[in-house]
Amino acid sequence: MSSVRMCVSNDNGVRNSARRARIKRSAGLGLLSAAVAGSITAFAAASADDLKLPASFRTWYHVNTMVIDKGSPLFEAMGGMHNVYINSTGETALKKGEPYPDKTVFLIDLHEFIISDGSYVEGPRKATAIMLKDKKKYAATGGWGFQAWAGGDPTKPLVTNPTKQCFECHQAKKDQDYVYSTYIP
Amino acid sequence: MSSVRMCVSNDNGVRNSARRARIKRSAGLGLLSAAVAGSITAFAAASADDLKLPASFRTWYHVNTMVIDKGSPLFEAMGGMHNVYINSTGETALKKGEPYPDKTVFLIDLHEFIISDGSYVEGPRKATAIMLKDKKKYAATGGWGFQAWAGGDPTKPLVTNPTKQCFECHQAKKDQDYVYSTYIP
Repeated sequence: MSSVRMCVSNDNGVRNSARRARIKRSAGLGLLSAAVAGSITAFAAASADDLKLPASFRTWYHVNTMVIDKGSPLFEAMGGMHNVYINSTGETALKKGEPYPDKTVFLIDLHEFIISDGSYVEGPRKATAIMLKDKKKYAATGGWGFQAWAGGDPTKPLVTNPTKQCFECHQAKKDQDYVYSTYIP
Repeated sequence: MSSVRMCVSNDNGVRNSARRARIKRSAGLGLLSAAVAGSITAFAAASADDLKLPASFRTWYHVNTMVIDKGSPLFEAMGGMHNVYINSTGETALKKGEPYPDKTVFLIDLHEFIISDGSYVEGPRKATAIMLKDKKKYAATGGWGFQAWAGGDPTKPLVTNPTKQCFECHQAKKDQDYVYSTYIP
């Protein structure tokens, strides 16, 4: 998963230059980078069938928001406004800081931002990305399945190699069940 | 209501210099400005009893997020990350772009932001602000009642003159039932 919110935490994760270097090397960045540039190529999805774009995510619990601005070394790869949501299955674990149960889904709704007199407001959608918990099925990637879609279009999946594009980065958060986001009451 | 999201739209409202000047003159800005400076004085609430801080707003529909950065002329007054939510009563009207029914509540959860390598991430809560629809009760202010609380603390209401602090700004959005936020699917 190339999602910023999933690869860069709001708990100072961005400050870790070693991790940042690792993130920048991640092939996952190339995916959202392409989305940013508007030159998206839709790959044939290599992911499992259950990794589908959730139809109802806009009604899910809003975990947090982060903005990757032009001053960030991550901007080219995944600049934008990242709205992070979680489905009801995972809410309790998020709030308790515990491992997530199977069928938990985190979703990043990545939008362009428009700067107007120093204010950053939401622009068009660039991509959506999910991580779905299934301890057995995705044991090789920390129990999480990963997928992303260019422009939020379910016909344009972006992840073909979840280990390289997603999990290599998430390994750094093993102590948080491979999730960067934490609970903000 | 001095809330950015309620006083500054995501539909280019910030670009209107005349409106911005009007916003800057609004006493409402002084309230959140005080919150930003950390020198909040809690006033005795002059508002009606139904203008209470909703206990459950973090589970409401996330309308949008906006960041007021240091480059904004509004920063001193209400800089920060503005997460905007709406209760279920108002969701349909938001999506249809129609006038809001009574008991609709918009809420801004205003947080500090932390800039880390060019990424803006959520910091501590600075204030929460609501606008509650009741066409008869708040007829003098467009059918909306306004209140805000320093630090999200229900014992620290900030709005004592809703007409001057809030409605003077919202009048500019009469064609959107005095609401700046619009639906982002």
